[in-house]
Amino acid sequence: MLANRANDRDDRAMRDVKLTRGIMKNANGSCLAEFGDTRVLCTATIEDRAPAWRKGSGKGWLTAEYAMLPAAGNKRTRRETNGRNGRSMEIERLIGRSLRNVCDLNAMGGEVTMTIDCDVLQADGGTRTAAITGAWVAAYDAFEMWKTAGRIKTNPLFGQVAAISVGLVEGRLMLDLDYEEDSNAEIDMNVVMNAKGEIVEIQGTGEQVSFSRDRLNEFLDVAEEGIKVLLAAQKDVLGIE
Amino acid sequence: MLANRANDRDDRAMRDVKLTRGIMKNANGSCLAEFGDTRVLCTATIEDRAPAWRKGSGKGWLTAEYAMLPAAGNKRTRRETNGRNGRSMEIERLIGRSLRNVCDLNAMGGEVTMTIDCDVLQADGGTRTAAITGAWVAAYDAFEMWKTAGRIKTNPLFGQVAAISVGLVEGRLMLDLDYEEDSNAEIDMNVVMNAKGEIVEIQGTGEQVSFSRDRLNEFLDVAEEGIKVLLAAQKDVLGIE
Amino acid sequence: MLANRANDRDDRAMRDVKLTRGIMKNANGSCLAEFGDTRVLCTATIEDRAPAWRKGSGKGWLTAEYAMLPAAGNKRTRRETNGRNGRSMEIERLIGRSLRNVCDLNAMGGEVTMTIDCDVLQADGGTRTAAITGAWVAAYDAFEMWKTAGRIKTNPLFGQVAAISVGLVEGRLMLDLDYEEDSNAEIDMNVVMNAKGEIVEIQGTGEQVSFSRDRLNEFLDVAEEGIKVLLAAQKDVLGIE
Amino acid sequence: MLANRANDRDDRAMRDVKLTRGIMKNANGSCLAEFGDTRVLCTATIEDRAPAWRKGSGKGWLTAEYAMLPAAGNKRTRRETNGRNGRSMEIERLIGRSLRNVCDLNAMGGEVTMTIDCDVLQADGGTRTAAITGAWVAAYDAFEMWKTAGRIKTNPLFGQVAAISVGLVEGRLMLDLDYEEDSNAEIDMNVVMNAKGEIVEIQGTGEQVSFSRDRLNEFLDVAEEGIKVLLAAQKDVLGIE
Amino acid sequence: MLANRANDRDDRAMRDVKLTRGIMKNANGSCLAEFGDTRVLCTATIEDRAPAWRKGSGKGWLTAEYAMLPAAGNKRTRRETNGRNGRSMEIERLIGRSLRNVCDLNAMGGEVTMTIDCDVLQADGGTRTAAITGAWVAAYDAFEMWKTAGRIKTNPLFGQVAAISVGLVEGRLMLDLDYEEDSNAEIDMNVVMNAKGEIVEIQGTGEQVSFSRDRLNEFLDVAEEGIKVLLAAQKDVLGIE
Amino acid sequence: MLANRANDRDDRAMRDVKLTRGIMKNANGSCLAEFGDTRVLCTATIEDRAPAWRKGSGKGWLTAEYAMLPAAGNKRTRRETNGRNGRSMEIERLIGRSLRNVCDLNAMGGEVTMTIDCDVLQADGGTRTAAITGAWVAAYDAFEMWKTAGRIKTNPLFGQVAAISVGLVEGRLMLDLDYEEDSNAEIDMNVVMNAKGEIVEIQGTGEQVSFSRDRLNEFLDVAEEGIKVLLAAQKDVLGIE
Repeated sequence: MLANRANDRDDRAMRDVKLTRGIMKNANGSCLAEFGDTRVLCTATIEDRAPAWRKGSGKGWLTAEYAMLPAAGNKRTRRETNGRNGRSMEIERLIGRSLRNVCDLNAMGGEVTMTIDCDVLQADGGTRTAAITGAWVAAYDAFEMWKTAGRIKTNPLFGQVAAISVGLVEGRLMLDLDYEEDSNAEIDMNVVMNAKGEIVEIQGTGEQVSFSRDRLNEFLDVAEEGIKVLLAAQKDVLGIE
Repeated sequence: MLANRANDRDDRAMRDVKLTRGIMKNANGSCLAEFGDTRVLCTATIEDRAPAWRKGSGKGWLTAEYAMLPAAGNKRTRRETNGRNGRSMEIERLIGRSLRNVCDLNAMGGEVTMTIDCDVLQADGGTRTAAITGAWVAAYDAFEMWKTAGRIKTNPLFGQVAAISVGLVEGRLMLDLDYEEDSNAEIDMNVVMNAKGEIVEIQGTGEQVSFSRDRLNEFLDVAEEGIKVLLAAQKDVLGIE
Repeated sequence: MLANRANDRDDRAMRDVKLTRGIMKNANGSCLAEFGDTRVLCTATIEDRAPAWRKGSGKGWLTAEYAMLPAAGNKRTRRETNGRNGRSMEIERLIGRSLRNVCDLNAMGGEVTMTIDCDVLQADGGTRTAAITGAWVAAYDAFEMWKTAGRIKTNPLFGQVAAISVGLVEGRLMLDLDYEEDSNAEIDMNVVMNAKGEIVEIQGTGEQVSFSRDRLNEFLDVAEEGIKVLLAAQKDVLGIE
Repeated sequence: MLANRANDRDDRAMRDVKLTRGIMKNANGSCLAEFGDTRVLCTATIEDRAPAWRKGSGKGWLTAEYAMLPAAGNKRTRRETNGRNGRSMEIERLIGRSLRNVCDLNAMGGEVTMTIDCDVLQADGGTRTAAITGAWVAAYDAFEMWKTAGRIKTNPLFGQVAAISVGLVEGRLMLDLDYEEDSNAEIDMNVVMNAKGEIVEIQGTGEQVSFSRDRLNEFLDVAEEGIKVLLAAQKDVLGIE
Repeated sequence: MLANRANDRDDRAMRDVKLTRGIMKNANGSCLAEFGDTRVLCTATIEDRAPAWRKGSGKGWLTAEYAMLPAAGNKRTRRETNGRNGRSMEIERLIGRSLRNVCDLNAMGGEVTMTIDCDVLQADGGTRTAAITGAWVAAYDAFEMWKTAGRIKTNPLFGQVAAISVGLVEGRLMLDLDYEEDSNAEIDMNVVMNAKGEIVEIQGTGEQVSFSRDRLNEFLDVAEEGIKVLLAAQKDVLGIE
Repeated sequence: MLANRANDRDDRAMRDVKLTRGIMKNANGSCLAEFGDTRVLCTATIEDRAPAWRKGSGKGWLTAEYAMLPAAGNKRTRRETNGRNGRSMEIERLIGRSLRNVCDLNAMGGEVTMTIDCDVLQADGGTRTAAITGAWVAAYDAFEMWKTAGRIKTNPLFGQVAAISVGLVEGRLMLDLDYEEDSNAEIDMNVVMNAKGEIVEIQGTGEQVSFSRDRLNEFLDVAEEGIKVLLAAQKDVLGIE
């Protein structure tokens, strides 16, 4: 029984969130996103090439890659050197879609590709939500660099995006689940939202449990509070309004 | 502009749904699920082996595989013989979770594995929703065969599950999108529900568009109507109440 | 002991043969070939690209791919997602050679590639012979579509081709072996013939048994009868003379 | 035009055949098979393990692997380090079947596996026929070693097997085609025979040409003469009757 | 021309070296090794399993894995998800050998495996030497944890090991090359040494330049000074004598 | 105990060295290098293509591939058909670097690639040193052919290169270790040298043993003697001064 959450956290409270910019010397943009003990290193690289199916379109592309270091979790996992695993591919597709949602691909300065690498240094639940939240900061900075380089005039990110998890754990509605909570959750939901408080992506799953419309709306109320914290942290670290 | 949907379908109407049972000679259970021109062949096989991490648990496991024939869509696609693609893995994971949601893994007759193969013969939008809907029928039949074989006393499926897509296409809320509609959708949502009308899984994505809570609830209203049609079709083909 | 063949079939009789054209909405040509319970879905796709080694030749290319659905046979088999298996590659090479034998690669309308996908929906022996027989129909139809599209003036298939198996099972010479017969065959032979009754490809194998020249000629007598049935079925479904 | 064959060889004559035994220090049995400039190194290794599906059968297994050195042919080819190519798999399956045809798998001294590696050092046509012919010598020697080691009493090879190619080149029926002839052949046939002059395996292919029953029988007449030469060479190098 | 080294470093001086212990929550032992801007995260995990070839030996095994994050260097590199690259495999083999050189595999508490993951977060030359130096600290800590867990009585590391690079750059003998120096080096040498000042592994390569015995000895003199700094840093961070 | 080396060889003596040129019909250059029972077939092929990263440079490239036949050693090894093994990649990288050390890549006649395939027919220790020594001869001959073809005026190899192993085996310093010696060596070193007696590459490893600077210099003294023998053999087989 999870009488108390770690650090006596309130059920609807976030863990400590810390976004650190510019921690990589070489990447165009980078951000270390920490949600409690979860640490994801996000780096954004812009390259002067486009995927084959993009040729001649004049548009840019934005994609993401996600991986966990073998020792990130509480049990060593294998590197994906011999084929990808489904979970990683699912997550990196989610990150890519979320960022493209707020990026004007026509305004990236031509047929260029931004790749956002999200590498989980330490995993304690919520790696995909930390990845999306940090990826936005890394992408923002990389596009600013692109502006400085004279390749674009305006940052093609026309809005903010951040993500948080909510879940039902032993009957309690909780925000921002850590690994132990997540492992015991009856319902697990990830919500990606923008600054208008609108939904960009929602993924909710019951583990042998289903949920009503009312429950769904409760989840979203709670998620919305978490998203506000994250959007503020993003602006704060970038020093923007 | 999509003035009219194909076959003058109403925005909130399903395509013709056809579930055909027992079409495979060898599989333990099988169902051809057709949603309009989308055709997915679902077969369920029970094998006397469990995944390594299941050893000693006494529990069964249920998993799914999803693939498209190369000529299923409107452009030939490559076979996944040299590594998997992310979309297929994402879909097969969704099918597996949805079916496990209504299956008592402790009641499968020991450490056995049911594999549900969902092979898309023809793709015209909604292949994952047809797959989940047909997979449930195939699984049901395979477990009935397992009962007949004396391996279990009761069918471990303790509920029904079906899935449908909804989306916003050129500003119109539509149910059960076909390929052309899906390609033009601003918002795309897949909903898996059970017979209680509760949500088992929800995945909604905006394509450069976000959506409000109200919109989400509208989507779910429409989805629910579609799910009812599918649950009835499942019962009908199996001849159960 | 195989006292009687299934359905009291005569040793030198074919199973019921059924060829169904145009069953795929998107493919340029398609044919479902059924030999008894064996069902192979053949689709032909023409693409405006040629293999690298064909560049500058002005010639087209025709190739085939063969795969079995996991639940096609009497035991679930693994998908070839992690490398190909030798049997499948051997069969798809045979299909490709057989079709190229009657196709004028100079008359395909330039450096285009026809890919014939042969997917075994259900396997009960003779999948490669059904595949070749159905592939010819699918290819014919795809080339007709190519004519309609104005890409060619004449169908580059200058002859018909069909295939059948013969074998020695418990000392009896049998035509068109089903799975059980094939598993017990001492000698197994696949013959590809054209409308002149000439051999296009012959592959005969003894399983710990060798065979004389006389035996070989007996096999071919029987095979020829089967081929005639198949060639007639092809013409019939296409409505050609 | 191929006015004369290389070295003024008669159309129905073999190239110089040379089988050299015991050229590998470590292998249980080995044979370098040379047909003119074609050189295939065949080594037979017996290991105390059986394939998984053989467990509990008490029977042995015999299998073959085939590969070409990159510089074996007249153009450098890639190593098969990233997936196998279809031709190699087809050939190694043929070698395995041919050898198993004359090997009593029940008499191999239990659940052991013989692997025959056929590595093409130099390729000038007929690599698969040289491989089969040399593989038999290597296997024979390895089983003799197995006898010496006290693992079996009798050599489980109950007969000889050898292979040769015949073809129709610019209308001329030729035996034992070299690379240039093979590249220009209208019909290409590989015949595996035993000491009774019976067929173990036959594979004949027309390249845009078909052939009659009479032609087939002519091919076999010629092949038989070649096989006799090879069977004699095998006995000669082993010093057996 | 490299008039001055970055930060006016003396040719025979190390960059700032920083070893940080215990930075991973879950790993048995961990160390972030920084040599200037080069940052390698080393984690050591002990698992209760041995490689297959170790079964029955009673001995443990120690192995290493090495990878670079895609954005670690000054140009994004691809992840090794589709086969390994040779450089990475060469480096991880070197790390493994170096650590095994000072580890008593008989004293690891049975057939267990220690895996040391060396993940390059940022690459600025000398990643392999930082990896070895940090790996030793991570391994030490993991074995201490193993002691605490009662699995062993003494730490099986019977000596220290550290590594440094030396090179000839534009004719100047330099210690601890950064990326730019390394890219311009005529001679590149990596030296692994122990606390006795003896060589554990030496790898020296001339880039279109060869070097004399005297030069080699000069290199080793310089390397030895660097190694002393590293050995002291290791002891310092561990608080051992 | 290794009282005597095989064939009563002196500790500082080479095995019989035999280099045979031109043994491949098709390769541009070839050399069979034999060091005692170790036999490596080296072939050099020049192709009119450059790696992608070389485009526009006007320079050539030289690379090597290394593989062992499955039956080369005293235990059958698996082919590298499903991914490469680290040892092979390490060795082929060493061969490539060693040859590039004495090759003027600007003088290869443009953007061409020389690939040197080193295939180990029989392995008895020292395969990498035999490979390097033989590769140089094969490369030399291939470049001579390239001269004859009018593609270059001078052979771009501006010096000789050869390699030998030295080791400490049961306390004795030995030259050119065979497999048994190598398996028992406490220290194992491979030295690549040129005709000036200078070091091109040195790789020395202690197996749980470290070595002093003096020991290293002793090793190099002995290695140098071996290299002289090899350089003479290379000149001898090529008939050059």
